[in-house]
Amino acid sequence: MKQLEKLYEGKAKQVVATEDPTRIIIHYKDDATAFNNIKKATIYNKGILSNAISTLIFRHLEAQGIPTHYLDTLNERDQLCRKVQIFPIEVVVRNIIAGSMARHLGMAEGFEPKNTIYDICYKNDDLGDPLMNDHQAVALELATYEELAEIYDLAGRINEVLKELFLKIGIKLVDFKVEFGKTEDGRIVLADELSPDTCRLWDIETGEKLDHDRFRRDLGGVREAYEEILRRLEGCMK
Amino acid sequence: MKQLEKLYEGKAKQVVATEDPTRIIIHYKDDATAFNNIKKATIYNKGILSNAISTLIFRHLEAQGIPTHYLDTLNERDQLCRKVQIFPIEVVVRNIIAGSMARHLGMAEGFEPKNTIYDICYKNDDLGDPLMNDHQAVALELATYEELAEIYDLAGRINEVLKELFLKIGIKLVDFKVEFGKTEDGRIVLADELSPDTCRLWDIETGEKLDHDRFRRDLGGVREAYEEILRRLEGCMK
Repeated sequence: MKQLEKLYEGKAKQVVATEDPTRIIIHYKDDATAFNNIKKATIYNKGILSNAISTLIFRHLEAQGIPTHYLDTLNERDQLCRKVQIFPIEVVVRNIIAGSMARHLGMAEGFEPKNTIYDICYKNDDLGDPLMNDHQAVALELATYEELAEIYDLAGRINEVLKELFLKIGIKLVDFKVEFGKTEDGRIVLADELSPDTCRLWDIETGEKLDHDRFRRDLGGVREAYEEILRRLEGCMK
Repeated sequence: MKQLEKLYEGKAKQVVATEDPTRIIIHYKDDATAFNNIKKATIYNKGILSNAISTLIFRHLEAQGIPTHYLDTLNERDQLCRKVQIFPIEVVVRNIIAGSMARHLGMAEGFEPKNTIYDICYKNDDLGDPLMNDHQAVALELATYEELAEIYDLAGRINEVLKELFLKIGIKLVDFKVEFGKTEDGRIVLADELSPDTCRLWDIETGEKLDHDRFRRDLGGVREAYEEILRRLEGCMK
């Protein structure tokens, strides 16, 4: 698939047009950022690891009946995907309290509430990606109530599939961020990526963080953690 | 009704015990505060005006079938109310965008969305009364999903009654904050107060603000605005 002009440059990925207007290529970079771009670094081969992990997870989700934008992995940094209109909403699914939510609501990191928490944020760098609720998202015309209901339903199904998958490889799925888009024919599908950049993953035995928090919190061993997740996922999916 | 010990001192009111353990007295003070207590002042007779306005509004809501904690107005500063267990949740109902929501989500003050916006905040001064969503409220065990559904239903009914009431007296109901409590027999009722301290009220003709924003924004004429609201409500309810 021939790559044409760059459509969008994100923090960890580029989106590139192809000759087919319904297809894009997602290119995984080695850039790591945190705290709304205040902290930046390059982590050698992170893009290759994230692409490999996201590929395994998207294929697994598709096999479980979750609609996604994923079509194929072209090489170690590039995925071929359906072109979708992204909802400017980040959906965070939380099984265990960690990170900003712990500070925001005064909960202890590691607390496991009885219910699954779904947060939505407005994808808007100028405003600092603020938390919002469904009524606010609808007022901003980011999505309709019906689209939000479908998005939450998909997010809940993805959570069930991923909790089980990670449990098999000795990992607690603490939380994860997903984005959704609409295809040309109006279907809502999972978009973006699922990798240690967008999930909190704790080793069940040791509690060790095997995700992007190693970068955010200067814990070191970022690449090694991503390699460990890829190694376990490959082992489980053989 | 004999007043016993003070149970709680809030920013604008005191809650006092009575000989009947199912009844409390709410005493309206002249104190005005804003920005989580950073700005403070005393406004001569504000407590008397807020008590009178809240009395008229609660009686009107009761007459329209909305369950409230209100029982009687004892004198110019004191209301007799049912004792309830307050949910530590502030519910804000917004018909027009103004104040913190405009800044938070980058919307223009005065924008009228197609849908009614309901926000909930965690009543927690240490955390700065943060915005939250239903899942977070349930995880914090502040309310169940079923209780929240009942609270939103009541808030929506209150909005319909109050929009109509204020329209009759030439006022746009921009937004308002309500709190709910549970009676001993488990019913959810409207509690706290409804006055220009807790509502944004704009004159339909002139756009003039006739509420607490006159204090927050140093516009002057706070007491005169409250007097104007009381005068119009009394005229309409004669």
